[in-house]
Amino acid sequence: MRTLYSYFRSSAAFRVRIALNLKGLPYDMVAIHLARGEQRQPEHLQRSAQGLIPVLADDGLMLTQSLAILEYLEERHPEPALLPTDAPGRARVRALALAIACDIHPLNNLRVLNYLEREFGADEEARLRWYRHWVDVGLQAWQEQWRRWPGPPGPYAHGGSPGLADCCLVPQIYNAQRFACDLQAVPDLMRVFDACMQLPAFAMAHPAAQPDAP
Amino acid sequence: MRTLYSYFRSSAAFRVRIALNLKGLPYDMVAIHLARGEQRQPEHLQRSAQGLIPVLADDGLMLTQSLAILEYLEERHPEPALLPTDAPGRARVRALALAIACDIHPLNNLRVLNYLEREFGADEEARLRWYRHWVDVGLQAWQEQWRRWPGPPGPYAHGGSPGLADCCLVPQIYNAQRFACDLQAVPDLMRVFDACMQLPAFAMAHPAAQPDAP
Repeated sequence: MRTLYSYFRSSAAFRVRIALNLKGLPYDMVAIHLARGEQRQPEHLQRSAQGLIPVLADDGLMLTQSLAILEYLEERHPEPALLPTDAPGRARVRALALAIACDIHPLNNLRVLNYLEREFGADEEARLRWYRHWVDVGLQAWQEQWRRWPGPPGPYAHGGSPGLADCCLVPQIYNAQRFACDLQAVPDLMRVFDACMQLPAFAMAHPAAQPDAP
Repeated sequence: MRTLYSYFRSSAAFRVRIALNLKGLPYDMVAIHLARGEQRQPEHLQRSAQGLIPVLADDGLMLTQSLAILEYLEERHPEPALLPTDAPGRARVRALALAIACDIHPLNNLRVLNYLEREFGADEEARLRWYRHWVDVGLQAWQEQWRRWPGPPGPYAHGGSPGLADCCLVPQIYNAQRFACDLQAVPDLMRVFDACMQLPAFAMAHPAAQPDAP
């Protein structure tokens, strides 16, 4: 059996939930409550020395890092595919995924917001401004990059079936909605988001649908 | 011909230089001077809407995001391989690469340090403390994760030939040295670093060996 260590609001865990659902892979879920600091308990540090989620226990392995987990699932369970078959298409999709996973999301992690408060005395408004800055800058550049190197026609980020880029985009848009970022500036991404959210694999992975959601 | 848009000190560009050298792929280099803001000039924004480097122009494509570039090179030029052949090994190596590319490096990018100075009035010492915090925390967790899920015997991050994890680790250690981070706490990583730096592919990719180094 497969166990996902998850938190309903974690966008990295959200990515993995989507991928497992898209591939039709059943899993048990164990909630790690980030806001209560459960990720820093010894029990969880045994799973992830970084004290991060998600972790996927699969076949005796403790898999960390959401994008490494997605690539692993793709190699072990190739169908339905999260990546196109051509090398340029794969490079496009991976670059789109990484532009979120490296350049937007890590800056807005809870541990970073905590540091800003603790060390720079950043109040809630200052932290929110920080959060929105990286999301707005990041998503607007993402949309521009996405338009410039057109993939196959949608409705998803790269063609007619959802993949790795959608697995990263949808949780990032969810975060952006939660913190009232400027989504009017990225209408193309909102169309991709809406198309994805029509699919049960995405809807079932949504934070509000998780058993650990309040 | 292949053109790499690079900056001598950029650790993301350093990763791609190492991979090109390991695979024996010749390339031209165009320097984009980050400290002078050349990455935000219209000419470069045409290559990368994010205004980031590296960008690799290859075969008519403008490839962005260092890890997507490395995966592309691996698919197009499989030998010598940057990833092991077994799915668990590939997951281990990718997770190690991403633990640097997502959880250490983006926090210490120039644009982030500039924001801290501009918006929070962080002086040089406060910025240095921020920088070292994420490097120290990140590398120590990396070493712990690396020890817990042992790969094949070294001397490199995953066995007897250097790969994707080494391409990320070496530039991050270079950055850590530059900012006098605590490298005494990560002796295993320093052994991997030293083994890599013996190889011409790494030595030739080092910032000090670049034509745009002062």
